[in-house]
Amino acid sequence: MSPTSVPHRHLLDVAGYSWSDLTQFLETTEAARHILSSPSGRTDALNGVNVTTLFYEASTRTRISFENAAKALGANVNSVAVSSSSVGKGESLVDTVKTLRALGSNVIVLRHERAGAPWLAARVFDGSILNAGDGWHAHPTQALLDLAVLVRRIGAKDGTLKGRRVAIIGDLLHSRVARSNLHTLRAAGAEVRLAGPASLTRGFKEFAERSGGFTLCSTLAEALDGADAVMALRIQHERLGDGEVSSLESYRESWGLTEERIASAAARGCVVLHPGPMNEGVEIDPDVADGPRSLILEQVSEGIPVRMAALWRTVRGDTPLAVPVRAKGSA
Amino acid sequence: MSPTSVPHRHLLDVAGYSWSDLTQFLETTEAARHILSSPSGRTDALNGVNVTTLFYEASTRTRISFENAAKALGANVNSVAVSSSSVGKGESLVDTVKTLRALGSNVIVLRHERAGAPWLAARVFDGSILNAGDGWHAHPTQALLDLAVLVRRIGAKDGTLKGRRVAIIGDLLHSRVARSNLHTLRAAGAEVRLAGPASLTRGFKEFAERSGGFTLCSTLAEALDGADAVMALRIQHERLGDGEVSSLESYRESWGLTEERIASAAARGCVVLHPGPMNEGVEIDPDVADGPRSLILEQVSEGIPVRMAALWRTVRGDTPLAVPVRAKGSA
Amino acid sequence: MSPTSVPHRHLLDVAGYSWSDLTQFLETTEAARHILSSPSGRTDALNGVNVTTLFYEASTRTRISFENAAKALGANVNSVAVSSSSVGKGESLVDTVKTLRALGSNVIVLRHERAGAPWLAARVFDGSILNAGDGWHAHPTQALLDLAVLVRRIGAKDGTLKGRRVAIIGDLLHSRVARSNLHTLRAAGAEVRLAGPASLTRGFKEFAERSGGFTLCSTLAEALDGADAVMALRIQHERLGDGEVSSLESYRESWGLTEERIASAAARGCVVLHPGPMNEGVEIDPDVADGPRSLILEQVSEGIPVRMAALWRTVRGDTPLAVPVRAKGSA
Repeated sequence: MSPTSVPHRHLLDVAGYSWSDLTQFLETTEAARHILSSPSGRTDALNGVNVTTLFYEASTRTRISFENAAKALGANVNSVAVSSSSVGKGESLVDTVKTLRALGSNVIVLRHERAGAPWLAARVFDGSILNAGDGWHAHPTQALLDLAVLVRRIGAKDGTLKGRRVAIIGDLLHSRVARSNLHTLRAAGAEVRLAGPASLTRGFKEFAERSGGFTLCSTLAEALDGADAVMALRIQHERLGDGEVSSLESYRESWGLTEERIASAAARGCVVLHPGPMNEGVEIDPDVADGPRSLILEQVSEGIPVRMAALWRTVRGDTPLAVPVRAKGSA
Repeated sequence: MSPTSVPHRHLLDVAGYSWSDLTQFLETTEAARHILSSPSGRTDALNGVNVTTLFYEASTRTRISFENAAKALGANVNSVAVSSSSVGKGESLVDTVKTLRALGSNVIVLRHERAGAPWLAARVFDGSILNAGDGWHAHPTQALLDLAVLVRRIGAKDGTLKGRRVAIIGDLLHSRVARSNLHTLRAAGAEVRLAGPASLTRGFKEFAERSGGFTLCSTLAEALDGADAVMALRIQHERLGDGEVSSLESYRESWGLTEERIASAAARGCVVLHPGPMNEGVEIDPDVADGPRSLILEQVSEGIPVRMAALWRTVRGDTPLAVPVRAKGSA
Repeated sequence: MSPTSVPHRHLLDVAGYSWSDLTQFLETTEAARHILSSPSGRTDALNGVNVTTLFYEASTRTRISFENAAKALGANVNSVAVSSSSVGKGESLVDTVKTLRALGSNVIVLRHERAGAPWLAARVFDGSILNAGDGWHAHPTQALLDLAVLVRRIGAKDGTLKGRRVAIIGDLLHSRVARSNLHTLRAAGAEVRLAGPASLTRGFKEFAERSGGFTLCSTLAEALDGADAVMALRIQHERLGDGEVSSLESYRESWGLTEERIASAAARGCVVLHPGPMNEGVEIDPDVADGPRSLILEQVSEGIPVRMAALWRTVRGDTPLAVPVRAKGSA
């Protein structure tokens, strides 16, 4: 099957992914993990494929994660950082994408501060677009790596998250991470509880009533009640002083994850996630972030096989990702 | 023949290139194109050669083009971006070049805002200097890729541009692209017509009379008359308001390439070029830039084999660039 | 022997290095030099090892030197540049290091404007930290490359610097290069003389009396007397106008290295070093920097095998670095 006939040629959003799609994705991630733990830690599977990271917002973590994923598959990688000062209007993204295509790019990993930018790029690009975060809208590979970590750590026997309770706490309104996680967590069958300051969760109550599958809680304790996993979202400093969130101290007072709060409300063994970078001492206490419940560094590590799977599946579709045979005596 | 005995060890300018030189260059470009279309898309021909891109002006397009060209030849690539704020005086370029040499660079691809900088660099560097644009002066690889595209698209049977009419429109005064194209187009036997605002073409009338081979026209219609190809130059916003070019609207009014103007004056099948980045709706209309006449993305693509040829010929001289045999069954 | 059991898993400082440690280091450097001069100029010895350069201060020279060293050993290289504007507090370095570890980094090459930062990083990193310069404190690979150059150029028959006189001139107070050189030069048995403006050498007189092994001189002529080598330190423009150093002219007047001053006081054949970048005409005259005494570019070149040795020894400990057999007929 040629790349262009594959339904998931791009990875723009996880909104339309069924549990069956996600299961296939997790299987490819598992193959990628085997490649990473092989002696060479890599394969030549995407030799000759040109991957360009095109970042309109800086992110060392996500950029390096994609770059290492692409290199582990044998692809050639170019990096383009566009400072926000030189960002103009919509046309410039389109022109840049066309230029990268003409320069030989087969895959563009795009981060952009405007929601919808990857869809615009996909309209003019005959290769694959991977959304590495667009405005407040979506961050599909983050949701996929969160899912992979949760399935491994708190998954049901059938590999889903059925019967598992996941709380997402904080600035839902501006969080592409939360939006993408809502889709994958619901497809996996989790019971999702949301909570945060009223000014940063507005609209979610109506959305919850309309779409079902999750609950907006009015307190942290309610959201944490019986939770098997809790995800803290980053509070951005520019949100402070808007009435609801008057200071970092008052935010921590109401919504900060502390060991005491988790221990008193959540299920035994409740795990903690955070998409990073963290404001330690604000949305999450340092002893939680570094403590035994924390899967935060596991999330970072999981990013590499998940992004290998994302690259592989957009370029090669359903073709299985082969794991190199471990040669005896090699190192 | 060792690299140092090769006459074209550097690629500083195309001013001295004869048609015979250009023909040899285009032959190497053809070999490079075959390498790019081979299964692996690369060769090991320049393994062990260190190429450094040293850019004192930002240019994603040209930098990635050179980097991909170097990688396709198997060279090792380092990139150094020098922000204009930290650019000091002439000595710092010389010191930087000497330092890069001591760090093992064999080839430096240099873009600099001062005309002549590559010559200064070549005086203190025992490897190869490739001029990737120096001030208003020269941009040899751009002219070579424009030539490769024009020969393929509108070339005469003998591979020259004899009997072909090429128009170059716009800000000639500040254009290193135009200056370098004048040399290659005349060596190829093209009839070249220039036009643009008086303030941005001053000196070209006397130059045309003195050197022959091209004509400065006073209107766009005159320059387009019977043209087989037309190249629009970028108008830079800092040129506006200097009397002649009072606004983007007035510029488009007099000098913008529109489909109607081309269709009514140029030869049937007239093709359109632009070195990029474009101000669409100013020097060129979007429907022309994206239309069937446009070779603009083909120019971008052509940059890679042309720069492979430039790297190869400066490092290895007249040694033919071998194309790997296409192994059966490989992919 | 696994990496974690090796005593020198990190390269944070040369302060504790014995002459025996330095001798072993120089032997690995010699092996690295053979690899660089082999046909391919590289080895696969560190295939599968991920090296990240994490620079909180810009330095093209040191960054490229480490990157080329890592590539010559077959390692995978990522580069992270953190602009000083986004540098926050200590935690952010710790979080970044933990994140890089989770992304697969095995080695972090760290440059930071705060003294001690690499020790902080080493506490939370289970791979290797290489200090590429921390504040005014230490720059171990610079001292090691200076040592390698001096041993080759003015070394005694037993490979030490016994009986050799080395002068270090200038801003000792703010120089991590000088601090690290003091350790290695004394371990090598050199007689070290220091000199510079009183405001930029304060504390060194007491330190010299207390620790022995070097002398603080009050004039340039005294420091140069009988010197076999002299190292000029960079004078930073922000040091000017603080009373002692009123202007670049007055600095050169008292402390600038000129051919006449060296010739009249130093030993015949006295060599000149400078860690770069230079202010030519201030701390060193151009005819000295470019003259026959100068080893300044040799220092830059020496950086690559020295950093290969540093990478190898931190990752593989005392395992010898094998030099690939030079295949006949290969090129």
